[in-house]
Amino acid sequence: MRELTVDLGERSYPIYIGHGILAQAGELFVKHGIGKGSPLLIVTDEHVAKRHLSKVSDTLEKTGYSTVSYTVAAGERSKSLRVLEEVVTAALQAGLDRKSTVIALGGGVVGDLAGFVAASYMRGIRFVQIPTTILAHDSSVGGKVAVNHPLAKNIIGAFHQPEMVLYDTSTLQTLPDREVRAGLAEMVKHGLIWDAEFTTWLEENAQKLVSLDAAALEHGLYQGCKVKSIVVSQDEKENGLRAILNLGHTIGHALEAVAQYNELLHGEAISIGMMGSAKLAVKLGYSEHIYTATKRILQAFGLPTRLPAHLDTDAIMSAMMHDKKFSEGNMVFIVPTAIGKVEINKNVSAAWVRDVVDELKQEA
Amino acid sequence: MRELTVDLGERSYPIYIGHGILAQAGELFVKHGIGKGSPLLIVTDEHVAKRHLSKVSDTLEKTGYSTVSYTVAAGERSKSLRVLEEVVTAALQAGLDRKSTVIALGGGVVGDLAGFVAASYMRGIRFVQIPTTILAHDSSVGGKVAVNHPLAKNIIGAFHQPEMVLYDTSTLQTLPDREVRAGLAEMVKHGLIWDAEFTTWLEENAQKLVSLDAAALEHGLYQGCKVKSIVVSQDEKENGLRAILNLGHTIGHALEAVAQYNELLHGEAISIGMMGSAKLAVKLGYSEHIYTATKRILQAFGLPTRLPAHLDTDAIMSAMMHDKKFSEGNMVFIVPTAIGKVEINKNVSAAWVRDVVDELKQEA
Ligand SMILES: NC(=O)c1ccc[n+]([C@@H]2O[C@H](COP(=O)([O-])OP(=O)(O)OC[C@H]3O[C@@H](n4cnc5c(N)ncnc54)[C@H](O)[C@@H]3O)[C@@H](O)[C@H]2O)c1
Ligand SMILES: NC(=O)c1ccc[n+]([C@@H]2O[C@H](COP(=O)([O-])OP(=O)(O)OC[C@H]3O[C@@H](n4cnc5c(N)ncnc54)[C@H](O)[C@@H]3O)[C@@H](O)[C@H]2O)c1
Ligand SMILES: [Zn+2]
Ligand SMILES: [Zn+2]
Repeated sequence: MRELTVDLGERSYPIYIGHGILAQAGELFVKHGIGKGSPLLIVTDEHVAKRHLSKVSDTLEKTGYSTVSYTVAAGERSKSLRVLEEVVTAALQAGLDRKSTVIALGGGVVGDLAGFVAASYMRGIRFVQIPTTILAHDSSVGGKVAVNHPLAKNIIGAFHQPEMVLYDTSTLQTLPDREVRAGLAEMVKHGLIWDAEFTTWLEENAQKLVSLDAAALEHGLYQGCKVKSIVVSQDEKENGLRAILNLGHTIGHALEAVAQYNELLHGEAISIGMMGSAKLAVKLGYSEHIYTATKRILQAFGLPTRLPAHLDTDAIMSAMMHDKKFSEGNMVFIVPTAIGKVEINKNVSAAWVRDVVDELKQEA
Repeated sequence: MRELTVDLGERSYPIYIGHGILAQAGELFVKHGIGKGSPLLIVTDEHVAKRHLSKVSDTLEKTGYSTVSYTVAAGERSKSLRVLEEVVTAALQAGLDRKSTVIALGGGVVGDLAGFVAASYMRGIRFVQIPTTILAHDSSVGGKVAVNHPLAKNIIGAFHQPEMVLYDTSTLQTLPDREVRAGLAEMVKHGLIWDAEFTTWLEENAQKLVSLDAAALEHGLYQGCKVKSIVVSQDEKENGLRAILNLGHTIGHALEAVAQYNELLHGEAISIGMMGSAKLAVKLGYSEHIYTATKRILQAFGLPTRLPAHLDTDAIMSAMMHDKKFSEGNMVFIVPTAIGKVEINKNVSAAWVRDVVDELKQEA
């Protein structure tokens, strides 16, 4: 088991990563001062419940905790105020009080939803993340929690740091292959924005990661979480640096929206988005190597590098404009300046972005 | 204009109180660094909109701010996730961004709702309180914001301190008399828990306050806000001391619930609740004077001191038990130990509380 600390003063917390560590969940809860007098609420989704819920509730019950669970439908639609209200109904019926803890058992959807329940139930109770997707190495660290509004993603939320993150890599064995690869896109992102050496390691170990090799996964998740937590420690509430975590996301979010959230997974969309950022880098005069290396790495993971031609460029551009409200023809972009380094560039011309979008449709 | 500071470190903020001070809203916004580049959203209710909205938006627009407003139905039912989603729709359509400010123009309902919108929109934007009820001298100070769930009041919320509170006592002139008296119940509470001298002043000035005398109002609201802010400064997140603000509320909340939120106003319910606390004090051996003085003061304001006989004692007791989940026959109660002083008593026997409830039905 490896351990990592997210350094946020009195809100600091550990991330535990290892194969089979859920067996120790009870002990870890005790170690972190979670009392047995108040019920724990496990929030999960139908796919995860089937495969991993009893493992979690059994080990906690065995340690003397009383647990209840609430299972939501799988998928992004559960990140809504309507489902939040349902979870709160379950919390009230189970008698959750101010000393209770909410546990998110699942991917980013469950983490964001359950996290916002924990942030707002009785104005904030404790929260533990048990991520079960690779993507969630990103979403479970940093305390951003939210639900969606019909008109905008993640628009209603909070910063609410968990008490700990318990990452049992054995749960990833049941993850569909497409979800595995999409999650690895965020891992690549963490390499690209911060750590050239890790990026090289990622490329060399792509096959092991895709096939869920335990040792490779543990290392990759550890390094990915580490980059995330360094960045978050320096800028908890996104006043500056934290924006670099959005590499590939400006284009990526627009693609998800235009594809109506049912064609591209988030990781796939940001894979294409990172290709776009690399192309922009070259246009801005940075080394061509950024583009070739980015492409090579993403392809090693079997991630998409070409933008589906049927997605309308105008629609993509206007989704981007809407997302960030850029003014006067210039946009803010996270641009790689080398492998493992990025800048926050506030003067990217919208015309160049449009060119990039068009070129991405021609990508091999 | 009088000014008071709520002392919360970097979250400190001023309360401005005075007749006609809304005319200075624009200047005060500028003084507090609220920029003109992002739209302001004024949330209000239908009663307040009719009487006071244009005054606020006009003065802000004149100063160069761009404002939009969203008007909800008057009444407690607007404190719901459904209405929250509607307000967020309005915010998105108006283009509110992370530098925008939400303004609550109204009583506690609007303050709590708009405050939770501000706390959660884009994970938290700025917030200004413009209270228009007397009760809101309580609710606009201290940063507790929330909406209700069908099964529980104020259960989904946050601690989100405003940038400032702008209390224009002239807006109170349009408040219905029953709302005036109910709001004054919280002012009496602030005297009873903290300040014997203020309590005496309140009794002597009851007639002036009920008839909305400008000077008396300004002084009473100032002192009431002062007590609230001292308590909140010492215990922002309700880990201890802040509980004393619940004098009269354990019984009061139960009465509101059993009367199905349509017979008693909040202030009326806590008036009866404070009578109950005074009776308990006497049972616990404190001076009989606490009871007689409490009753005399509440009656000076024309507030109810008798519990409506048709409200079922069993139902009241079980609402209380549910509200706080007391165990083994003992309850936590805020008990006056003298006029201007209270204790947090964790050993009040439920049987005594039941006696008090029954006795309150016989009160003159
Ligand atoms: N809070 C943040 O900082 C942050 C960062 C990135 C992404 N996100 C959010 O994360 C969400 C995406 O997360 P995600 O990709 O994990 O999606 P997800 O939670 O929907 O999981 C993807 C799919 O995998 C299934 N699944 C999860 N674990 C499984 C397992 N172990 N075995 C089998 N199936 C399993 C789920 O049921 C779902 O169908 C988005 O809503 C995004 O906005 C948040
Ligand atoms: N956040 C806190 O710390 C806190 C503390 C106490 C109470 N509260 C909450 O406050 C709410 C009660 O507040 P309230 O009593 O102000 O209720 P309210 O906001 O519903 O106002 C009472 C009535 O007066 C009307 N009104 C308001 N201002 C007016 C004016 N100037 N002229 C004419 N009509 C006017 C309103 O439309 C409403 O009909 C409850 O929801 C309670 O939970 C919150
Ligand atoms: Zn992402
Ligand atoms: Zn009250």
